[in-house]
Parts: sequence; C-alpha cells; structure tokens
Amino acid sequence: MAGQIGVGMVGYAFMGAAHSQAWRTVHHAFDVPLTPRMAVLCGRDAAAASAAAEKLGWASVETDWKRLVESDEVGLVDICTPGDTHAEIALAALAAGKHVLCEKPLANTVAEAAAMAAAAEEAAARGVRSMVAFNYRRVPALAFARSLVADGRLGELRHVRAQYLQDWIVDPEFPLVWRLQKERAGSGALGDIGAHIVDLAQFLTGSRISGVSAVTETFVRERPLVASSSGPAASSGSARGEVTVDDAALFTARFSSGALGSFEATRFAAGRKNSMRIELNGSAGSLAFDFEAMNELHFHDHTLDPSVAGFRRILVTEPEHPYVGAWWPPGHGLGYEHTFTHEVRDFLVALGSGTDPAPSFADGLQVQRVLDAVERSAAADSVWTVV
Amino acid sequence: MAGQIGVGMVGYAFMGAAHSQAWRTVHHAFDVPLTPRMAVLCGRDAAAASAAAEKLGWASVETDWKRLVESDEVGLVDICTPGDTHAEIALAALAAGKHVLCEKPLANTVAEAAAMAAAAEEAAARGVRSMVAFNYRRVPALAFARSLVADGRLGELRHVRAQYLQDWIVDPEFPLVWRLQKERAGSGALGDIGAHIVDLAQFLTGSRISGVSAVTETFVRERPLVASSSGPAASSGSARGEVTVDDAALFTARFSSGALGSFEATRFAAGRKNSMRIELNGSAGSLAFDFEAMNELHFHDHTLDPSVAGFRRILVTEPEHPYVGAWWPPGHGLGYEHTFTHEVRDFLVALGSGTDPAPSFADGLQVQRVLDAVERSAAADSVWTVV
Amino acid sequence: MAGQIGVGMVGYAFMGAAHSQAWRTVHHAFDVPLTPRMAVLCGRDAAAASAAAEKLGWASVETDWKRLVESDEVGLVDICTPGDTHAEIALAALAAGKHVLCEKPLANTVAEAAAMAAAAEEAAARGVRSMVAFNYRRVPALAFARSLVADGRLGELRHVRAQYLQDWIVDPEFPLVWRLQKERAGSGALGDIGAHIVDLAQFLTGSRISGVSAVTETFVRERPLVASSSGPAASSGSARGEVTVDDAALFTARFSSGALGSFEATRFAAGRKNSMRIELNGSAGSLAFDFEAMNELHFHDHTLDPSVAGFRRILVTEPEHPYVGAWWPPGHGLGYEHTFTHEVRDFLVALGSGTDPAPSFADGLQVQRVLDAVERSAAADSVWTVV
Amino acid sequence: MAGQIGVGMVGYAFMGAAHSQAWRTVHHAFDVPLTPRMAVLCGRDAAAASAAAEKLGWASVETDWKRLVESDEVGLVDICTPGDTHAEIALAALAAGKHVLCEKPLANTVAEAAAMAAAAEEAAARGVRSMVAFNYRRVPALAFARSLVADGRLGELRHVRAQYLQDWIVDPEFPLVWRLQKERAGSGALGDIGAHIVDLAQFLTGSRISGVSAVTETFVRERPLVASSSGPAASSGSARGEVTVDDAALFTARFSSGALGSFEATRFAAGRKNSMRIELNGSAGSLAFDFEAMNELHFHDHTLDPSVAGFRRILVTEPEHPYVGAWWPPGHGLGYEHTFTHEVRDFLVALGSGTDPAPSFADGLQVQRVLDAVERSAAADSVWTVV
Repeated sequence: MAGQIGVGMVGYAFMGAAHSQAWRTVHHAFDVPLTPRMAVLCGRDAAAASAAAEKLGWASVETDWKRLVESDEVGLVDICTPGDTHAEIALAALAAGKHVLCEKPLANTVAEAAAMAAAAEEAAARGVRSMVAFNYRRVPALAFARSLVADGRLGELRHVRAQYLQDWIVDPEFPLVWRLQKERAGSGALGDIGAHIVDLAQFLTGSRISGVSAVTETFVRERPLVASSSGPAASSGSARGEVTVDDAALFTARFSSGALGSFEATRFAAGRKNSMRIELNGSAGSLAFDFEAMNELHFHDHTLDPSVAGFRRILVTEPEHPYVGAWWPPGHGLGYEHTFTHEVRDFLVALGSGTDPAPSFADGLQVQRVLDAVERSAAADSVWTVV
Repeated sequence: MAGQIGVGMVGYAFMGAAHSQAWRTVHHAFDVPLTPRMAVLCGRDAAAASAAAEKLGWASVETDWKRLVESDEVGLVDICTPGDTHAEIALAALAAGKHVLCEKPLANTVAEAAAMAAAAEEAAARGVRSMVAFNYRRVPALAFARSLVADGRLGELRHVRAQYLQDWIVDPEFPLVWRLQKERAGSGALGDIGAHIVDLAQFLTGSRISGVSAVTETFVRERPLVASSSGPAASSGSARGEVTVDDAALFTARFSSGALGSFEATRFAAGRKNSMRIELNGSAGSLAFDFEAMNELHFHDHTLDPSVAGFRRILVTEPEHPYVGAWWPPGHGLGYEHTFTHEVRDFLVALGSGTDPAPSFADGLQVQRVLDAVERSAAADSVWTVV
Repeated sequence: MAGQIGVGMVGYAFMGAAHSQAWRTVHHAFDVPLTPRMAVLCGRDAAAASAAAEKLGWASVETDWKRLVESDEVGLVDICTPGDTHAEIALAALAAGKHVLCEKPLANTVAEAAAMAAAAEEAAARGVRSMVAFNYRRVPALAFARSLVADGRLGELRHVRAQYLQDWIVDPEFPLVWRLQKERAGSGALGDIGAHIVDLAQFLTGSRISGVSAVTETFVRERPLVASSSGPAASSGSARGEVTVDDAALFTARFSSGALGSFEATRFAAGRKNSMRIELNGSAGSLAFDFEAMNELHFHDHTLDPSVAGFRRILVTEPEHPYVGAWWPPGHGLGYEHTFTHEVRDFLVALGSGTDPAPSFADGLQVQRVLDAVERSAAADSVWTVV
Repeated sequence: MAGQIGVGMVGYAFMGAAHSQAWRTVHHAFDVPLTPRMAVLCGRDAAAASAAAEKLGWASVETDWKRLVESDEVGLVDICTPGDTHAEIALAALAAGKHVLCEKPLANTVAEAAAMAAAAEEAAARGVRSMVAFNYRRVPALAFARSLVADGRLGELRHVRAQYLQDWIVDPEFPLVWRLQKERAGSGALGDIGAHIVDLAQFLTGSRISGVSAVTETFVRERPLVASSSGPAASSGSARGEVTVDDAALFTARFSSGALGSFEATRFAAGRKNSMRIELNGSAGSLAFDFEAMNELHFHDHTLDPSVAGFRRILVTEPEHPYVGAWWPPGHGLGYEHTFTHEVRDFLVALGSGTDPAPSFADGLQVQRVLDAVERSAAADSVWTVV
C-alpha cells in the first residue's frame, strides 16, 4: 500500500491548472510509491485562490507562500509562478526540507539559478529532492527518441535543428502581459519557449551546448497596458507600455559532441500555434518531431537499403513506448496534459526509490547558462560566446 | 453551487478505465450543474473489482449489477460491459429511475436495441435520461466539423468516405478473445468499430443511411483459445476455437440526402492502429479527418479562388472550438480520453437542464438497423438492402 | 546504333500532347533499341492538326486515320482518340502490321475490347505488338510498389482500397463535354478514371478481381451544351443536354487471391484534383500511394518491432528505383508526363527484344470486363456480379 | 512565325543534361518568340562530348569553349561547368555579343562575380542579355509564392526560415569529387545549395540580406581520391585527399525589410534527399514549401477567423498558376526538369521583348556577396558581418 505525500502548489494559472490535472490523475494511471494529497494551494488573492482550489481540487488555501512552505501538510512544493519568484520560494522550501518541483525556466538569472542548484545539491545530501519542470522530456515520442539516440540508432550526430514557433502576439494590439515584461519573465520567447528546446536538444543528444552565436529582436516595441499585469489579457484603453523582452531569438550552436545546432524561438510565426519542432541528423539515421502532432515520431534509418528507406511515422502509442502502457491501446493518442502526469509520476518514483530525479536544478542552471550566453552574444554583435 | 449525482459503473476493463478518467476529471475542467460522485463499481470477481475500484477511484464495489442498479447511492448507471449484457442492465436501470449512459453498440440485436429505445423514450417522459456512448462525436475536430456542415460550408453533400482501420488481429496467433465471439460481441469489426463510423457519418451529415450493399469476411477462421474468454489476451496452448464474427466489413451506402457513402471497418489493416478516417465532399467544400491525428481537421473551401484553395490543416485547439476552452492554449492538443470527459460533461449538462442528451438510444437503434442491414446484405449476395 | 521506327498518332488533345512529349524525349533519357520518328499526326480538321503537328513536333499531317495506318512512314500507331473509335483504328492498324499503343479504356464495350484482344493475339503471332496505355503502372513509385508486393514484403494481401478522386465537374454549369456523353466516352468516371484503379489494383496485387457489387450515380443530370462536343469546354448559352454517364462509381470487390477491395471513382470530390489513391494491407506490411504526391510511396513493414514500425515515406527518386536512373539525383522528383515517357520506353524495349509488352490488350479486355460487371451490378440492385 | 536562336552549351554533366531537356522541350510547351536550335556542345574529351551530343540532341561538338563562343551558329551561350570557369567563359561570350545563361553560383569569388556583373551591364546596353540560372525561382509553387508576398498576402514579414538539406556525402567513404574541392567548386554546401536559398529568400521577400552571423563545418576532412576529379564518383583505392570545402553552413541573417532569417545548407542530413525548405511568417500570413513535394505550397491566411484558419496545401497545378497553363490538368504535377524549361522560356521571352531577364548577373553578384559575408563571419568567430 502506497503512502501519501502532501503537495503544496504556488500559483494557479495555466501551469497550475496543468499541474493540478497531473496531481489528480497520476496514481489512477500509474503505480506510484506515494499517492499525492493535494493539500494546499497558494495565491495572493484569497477569494480567487479559494475558487481555484475548489475548481482544481486542492483541500486548502494560503495567501502567503511562506506559510505553505512551512505547513506540516506539505511535503512537496510545486512552484508554478513567474520566474522572478522561483528562487526565493525554492530556496525556502529546500531549507524547510520540502521536495521541490519548479517550473521552467529555473530562474530569471544565472545567479539565481546557481544558488538554487547549489541549494538543491546540498538538500539532496539530506534526501530532499528537486526537479525542474521541463515537461516536454515526458512526451512519449521524445522520451522514446532519447532511447533511440542512446541506443546508437542515429550514429554520430551531425545536426540539431530546433524551433519553437508560436503566434499569440502577432497582433500588435495584444496587450502587455507579464510574459512581455523583463522584470517578471526574465526574457521573452527565449526563456519561455527557447528554454524548452535548449533542454530538449541537450536531453535528446546527451550532449551539452558549448557555445552560441545569437540574434534577438523585438518586433513590436510598445503594446497596450493591462489593468493588472497578472490579470487576464485584456487591454485597458489607449495607454501603452514598453515591451522589454525579445519577441524572437535565433542562434547557432555547437555541441560538445561536435554536432551543429540551429535554434529559433519566436511568438511571431503566424499559423504555428505550439510548433516545437526538432530534427536530429546522424551518420546512421535521423529523427523529426513536431509537438503539434505530439503522438508521432519520424525516424529515418539510414542503414537500410536506400530503395526502402525514408522517414517513417511512428505512432508512439504502443505499450512498448515510454509511459504509454499506463494509458490506452495503440493509436489512441495522448494530449498535452499527460506530459505533466508523466513528470510527477517520475518525481514520485524517484522519491520512492530515494534517487534524484531528472532534470535536476543543475540541469536547469545549465540551460540558464545557455540562455545567458545567447543574450550576451546577441548584445555583442552575435560574436561566438562560450557557455 | 453544484449538486452531486452518484454514479455506478458496470464493467472496468478498457472502457471502464476511460470512463473513470472522465468521471474523475469532468468537474475540474468544466462547469457542470452536477458533480459526479464515483459511488459504486460492479464486477463479477470481488477481489479484482475491489482492486480496480481503488485504482480507478470508485468508493465501493458490487458483484451483482442488480444491486448497483438498485443502490440509493446511484443516480446514474454507466454500462461498460460487452454488448450481450447492455439491454438487460439498461432496462433495469431505466425502470429503477436511473439515468443511463450505455456503451456502443447499443445492443447485439435490433430487437434488443428497439426495446431499449422504447424504454428510454418512456423513461424520458419521467425525466430519466439516457445516452449511447458514441464518444467520437466529442472529438473537438468532429464536433466542429458538424458545425461547419450544419452551417452550409460544404454545400450539398455528394460523398461520405469512412474507414475505421485497425490491425490488432493481423497475427493469426492472436487469441480468441470475447470480441471475436458472436455470442458476446454480436459482431466483429462491424459492431465494434463500424458502428462508430456509421454514427459519425450520420451525425456529421445530419442525414440517415437509407440503404446498403455489403460484403464481410473472416480472414482467420480459427484462433488459439484463451483460458477465460473474459481474461487477458494470452493464448492457452494449442487448442483452437472458431472465430464467429467478421474480421472486416465493407459496404456502399446511400444517404437520405442523396449522398453516396463508402464504408470499411477492419482489424486487418497492418500499420493502421486506430485510423478512423472520414472524408466528406460537397458542392461548396470538403472535410477530412483521421483519428490518428485527432487534433487536426482538414477543410477545403471550394468557394475560394482555385489558385489559393486547398485542404487546410486546422488545428482544432482554439478557444472558439467545441470543448477546447476548458483546456489548454492553442496548439496544446488533447487525447483520446478527453472524448469521454466531453461525453459525460454533455450528459451532466443535459441532466442539469432537464433535456435529452444526444446521441439517444433511438440514435443507437438506428445505427443498429444499419448494421443489421449490412449483415443481411452480406448474407444475400450484397443485394441492396433498405435500412 | 539504334534503328528508327516511324510513329503515327491519332488525336492530339490532352493525351496527344502527353504522348508527344514522350515520343520527343524517350531516346534522350533512355537507351532504347529503336528511336522514334514522329512521322504523322492525324486530326479531322486539317488546319488545327497542322498547327498541333508543328507545336508538338510531328513531321506531317493526315485528316483520315486510314491513310495514317497505311502510311509507309508509320510502323507504330498511337491511338489517343475517345474510346468509341479505338476498336476500328486498332483493328485496322494491326491488320496492316503496325504495332499499336492504345489509350485506355481499351474500348467502350466488352465486345469491342474482345475483338481487339483477339486481333492483338493474332497479330502477336506475326510479331506485331500491342499495348494498352495504363500509364500509371509507369509511375516509379507504383512500379516499385509492384516489386515489393511480388517480393512478398506485404505477405498475404487482405485489403485493397483504391480511390480516384477529381473535382472538375463539381460546378453544375460545367458544360456537356464529350467525356460526359455515353456514345463517345462509353461511361463517365467509371471508364475514365475507374479503369485506372482497376488496372492498377490488379497490377499491384498480381491478382484479378473476381466479382463486384456496385452503385453508380449521376448527381447533375443536365448541363449546358457546347457548340462542338469535341471543342473547348465553353458552354453555349442556356441550352442544356442530358448527362448520359456516371458522375461517380463505387464498388466492393473480391480478388482471386482472397483479398477484399473497395473502389471509388468520382469527379465530385471537391478539392481532390487528381487524387488516385491506393492502399494495400497484407499480413506482413502495407503500402499507400496518392498520385497528388507521385514521388512518394508509403510503406509499413509489419515485421519490425512495433516500437519502431510505421508508414515510412519513401522518396522514389533513388537510382535503384524503376526508371529513375535515367533522370535526376535523389530528391529531384518527376512529373505526370514521365509516366508516358516510361510507357513508350517499355514499348520500344519490347519491340527491340521481340516480346509482348504489358499491359496487353487482353489485360485491357479484363479491365473492361470488370467495368462491365460494375455497370451490370449497379443496374441490378448492387447484387454480387461475377466478372 | 518564330525565328530561331542557336544555342551553345559548355559542359554536359548533371546540369548539362537538365538544360538540354529544357532546350529540347521549351517551344513544344510554350509559345516563345525564338525557337532554340541546339547547335554546339562543348566538352574537353571529344569522344565523350560526341556521345553526349548525340544522346542529348546537340548538332555538333567543340572541345574548346572559345570556338563555341565564336561560332556563327551560336547566339546564346549556356554555361554548365563548375564555378571556377564561369567568369572566363561568360566574359568572352558577352564580349562576343552572345547572350549568356550561366549556372549558379555565378562565380567562385566576389571579384569574379563583380567583373561578370559589370560586363553584363555593359553588354545589356548593346542588347546582349544575361541571366544566372537560379532555377528554383521557376518552380510554379515558388513563383506563385512570390506573387502572394508581392500582393501583400503575408503582411509585414517577420521571419524567413530556409534550409537546404541533402545527404549524399554522409558516408565518409564517398569520394573526393570536384564539388568537395575548393579550387573547383569555390565552396561546399554553401555555394552549391546555400546559394539557392539565399537567392530564393531574397526573391520571395523582395528584400535583401543586409548582414549575417555564420558557422561552417567540415565533418569528414579526408576522403578517398577519385582517378579523375571530373570523372564518376568512384574511389580509387586507399589514397585519400583533403576535403577543402564546408560540409555544412548555418547562419542567421537580417533583411533590409527588418525580417530575421535562419539559413542552413548541409549535405549531412540523413534521409533528406533534396529538401529545400523555406517558410515565411508575416503579420497577415505564412508560407511553407519543401522541394521534395515541389507541387505543393502551404499557405496560412492569418486574417481568417482562427477557428477555420490553418496551413492549406495548395496544389500548384491550376491553370491560373505560373507556367502551369502550358502543361497538364490540375493535380498532374510537374518535376524537377520543368524548372529549367521555365527558365529558358523566360530567357527567350526576354530576348523577344528586348528586356533584361531576371535574375541578372547583378543579382548573382549580390548572392555572392552574401556567401562571402557568411565565410567571413564564420572565419571571425561568427561576428555580425555586413553584406
């Protein structure tokens, strides 16, 4: 019989809703060593937080994250707030002996991320675990892609081609939400979605980005203000404010393995809704993936006779595929939210076995270093910048 | 504040797991007038049912469905058993004043289905609601397709081309599970998956199939026996039994609107895992869909200038699309299980508004009549057979 | 050094232009035992035929096909006229000892086709060769598909799913051209495009259709007249005439091998321009093809580990693929007209080696028998009709 | 009645064969003001050149290009040799008053290209025309894409994403052909295929690349020697030589319009045969193209209601599309070679109208400047380099 673990979640917007679905579901789909108890939800506005807690299934509410962190009901703190608050909450939670799941990017600066990674390493020595929520690693197709690469099915890697394309701010009248403000979000497309493809590229290849050359751009430099930057995305009259983050970030990269990388993150790719694409080319094969068709992985086996070789569409819905055995028969695909269910499943399994889950805060820090190198290169005429 | 309704579910295999996920989730994603309480799970084997109840989140267990139907804890009976038991359970539940959600096909014979439809109509007069679980109507892309057709975007319909292709019994050593036995399943591919495309074609077109010409085939006529026909799909030695259902069913059809239909259901399409495909061609446009890419709908607007016309891939993940507003941002797709969450959501909404949900048992009966016409045509040299 | 052969072509519309491109090109792309000399073009209107001859590259013109057949300049007669004239011309040409390439369908009736096949067999004994122009056999992807089937890569065939979808007469104001008149065209979609998928299905499977059950329909029963039925497709005022052929034909079929077939030919599939699609499912693998992407063949190898299996997109542009070695490097695709160049190449090679090319007139007759069975079944309540 | 123009072609390998097909075909497909007469083919090996001339349809042969340039039979010189010879031949031809079609890249250095552009400008004043053979501009889908951009259908351009991916040298045992030698080819993937996407991006956007930041790499630095560097690609024993060109080139770019660009050219993308892909994102729409499916253009109209918006697959085979009216009905696609037929058609039309065809040598020079900036940036730590 599995024991329980009390979970306290800070923040309840988009990420909070997705994490809640995961915490509600994980033990019904998977055999996990600990059953999550959705104990405390934290939000600054008591009424709104209470409504969210009822809707999302949390047992109680706090308006001060410090009380959540200290609560006896809470053994695991799940941080779903904007990046400017991650470090403070995570450090306090780890210090209090609470396991921490932290949304990405790990922090808004390398310095914060480094402090968090150091604290996580120190906490791990006490059996306190931490994980950064790069949920796309838990797309079955991408977890399976990693195993194909690790098994050598691609041979020596030559190229990584990663793009994260969205279009939700193409309209210049879209308002100045917190994700467009540097002090809250740290950066724009770069940290929000670029962080995902940096992590993913390093995860899939098993190799680190060693240097980059970058350009960034803010196409629309002023946008309508919103009444409250944490509120809904409705503009308030004609007042405008400055966009202080990048709209798009492009960079070339080299991996420690010798592979070349091409990266692009943008919110201005009209018609691309959540197109996180990645293609790997190696001496023995290639892989291609697009999150807009998340149940498919395209694999070219270059060792076959050329007359019958080609990119094959693998429906990653077989019981042999990662995570899939817990769900439905072949051809019955999963959705976005499953990535979070798989994420907390892996965290709970790690807690049960007393091991450190991945990606670690150190992994999150490394991603942060890459993002930092991108910004430094972009600020220095794109000159090659070592990570 | 929403009231509650106690749910009792009979059966806990594949469909039971999918329905459980829906009952656990629906009120967290949608605003529903009644919150489901997962009260009773019924299975013949007490130990197995108890284990399933704990895993799936049901509060108690019964081994006799009659007690579940009579339980004061249960206001809604969810029937997830093989087709040979649907009629008896549903009739008892309706008689007991319980709302009924019944898996498809509604029954194994037209006679049973007719009795169920009559009982449902009689019950509706008493405010007792029923619904047959053609879950694919609740794929957002297909619900949206229906609205495009209803809005006249396709003009006068000419062609319906529907295929449901699977491959799980291509191997002749796959054992003789209950779905391959006529006395349990009623029919083979025809009733299991053919029923879905019949319902879907009629739903999308808003028109009924008036006649058919059919062929059916059983490619592999003997298969290894399983120890228990309701048990897992493992064969037991060399003993073999007869496959008494169709492996594949093909038929042409005419709709009352004048459109022509081509239908195919098979479990022998190697490489097609759950490829429920449908294409509609009208005088003003066309639609194409494949469940293996369930978040996409392909729409051709034939009224555009030919130079810029073509099938467009609509990612049916916008807040304007049916059901999608409850979930994630554009491009963050849904999975198979969401169809069930949407299904019970619609049932709960109908209960709240005191209206009859669709598809009704009468709709289920009509599908059954089509399946029956298919079998009669196939048995009579494919001669045209009026539904 | 290759010798020459004089070619005489009857008809110079769409097919005539395509065949001319083939005769002009074949010896520049392939090593052929005979170089074609484009000797005589025949058309009833002398001025128009002369203009066509100059444009298309023919050395001289005749207005009476009988003189073309008898010309000493002509060793091979290429028949590109509507189906009602095929038999008379072909019989005369074979009698005159001229090799014959005849467009499809071979004739408008089984009786005519039978006479042609008999004449072709008799002529073959005299070394006079004949071929029916089912050009799609010469799409490299389909020729390669045939070799995969013949090599057993699909195992035992279960399903053939063939559709030929066009949309050029969706508009009810499209005029009554000769292809919509039974006395000229023999039938509508059935003979024009249905003939192609019948031939192709039998070619790919190496098995014959043994019986069918069919429905046909004429959606638009009257259309504007054109000034001349052989003229351009411009309507002439408000006068209308009856459409005397099918707009669409659907049928189920059985192959002598035991496979089931589903066939559909229509000119009312809005948005499908020339979508000749075919899918084969066997016990060991599947193939899928669509002419709208004619350089691709999709192959599923069902013998692979399920985790890495899936339909692979083979670009059929490798030097190992049929016909491709004569053209461009991998990835540099071919177009529609190449199918004709390949066709005449194969005819010339057969002439050089003194063998009978395929598909023979006997093959064309067999296709005609299938089309005839389709029409008889459609006229008899879709009853199963043996070919 | 059209006059004639004598053509002299220098070189008869891959490009020579493709150009020959164009010269043989153009006047049969299009109405052109001048009919080409394939007068002289030039190759250094008399026997091989004679065999090629007979195969490809040229009337006579020269072994010295200078005699070809001076021949009274030749009014137009078509240069299909490696890049190291372009300048000398083109300058001589222009001086001799012959029109010049020159393969890309225009030259191996900016200095050579500048001399050629100057000579072309001077010659144009005398009515002597010149054109650089960026044939991909003549893919109907891309010519049509240009018109959509020019018509404002994409709004303000934000992103250009261009990749040219091949895989023919993935195998390290592939020999050291001339395309891998700097003295012959000038550069590797950069000049061979990168030049195409640079030209195409500028053509489609109507905007020039103003600066770049680049990396290049040679993955396999030694390869087997071939007996003759101009011979077939067969290795000669164990001797190896140095690869002196790039295997891959990646760069970011800015356009004068303000758009950002991401470019990649490589011969190491296993499974990508000739995948020249380009995507444009603008404020009003997006376009995507891949040469491996050259008859398709994907267009997203961002001004539509989001519920029905998406990338539509336009089959660029309608009579309204550029060049297509000369060929086949809708859905009957074209192939690689047609790009050359269209190219020479446009050149002949320009000659007939006494105008300068595009792309001009000045356009070719500008591409060369971009390639040069790429090489300079790659050699200088990827620093931003103005074109």
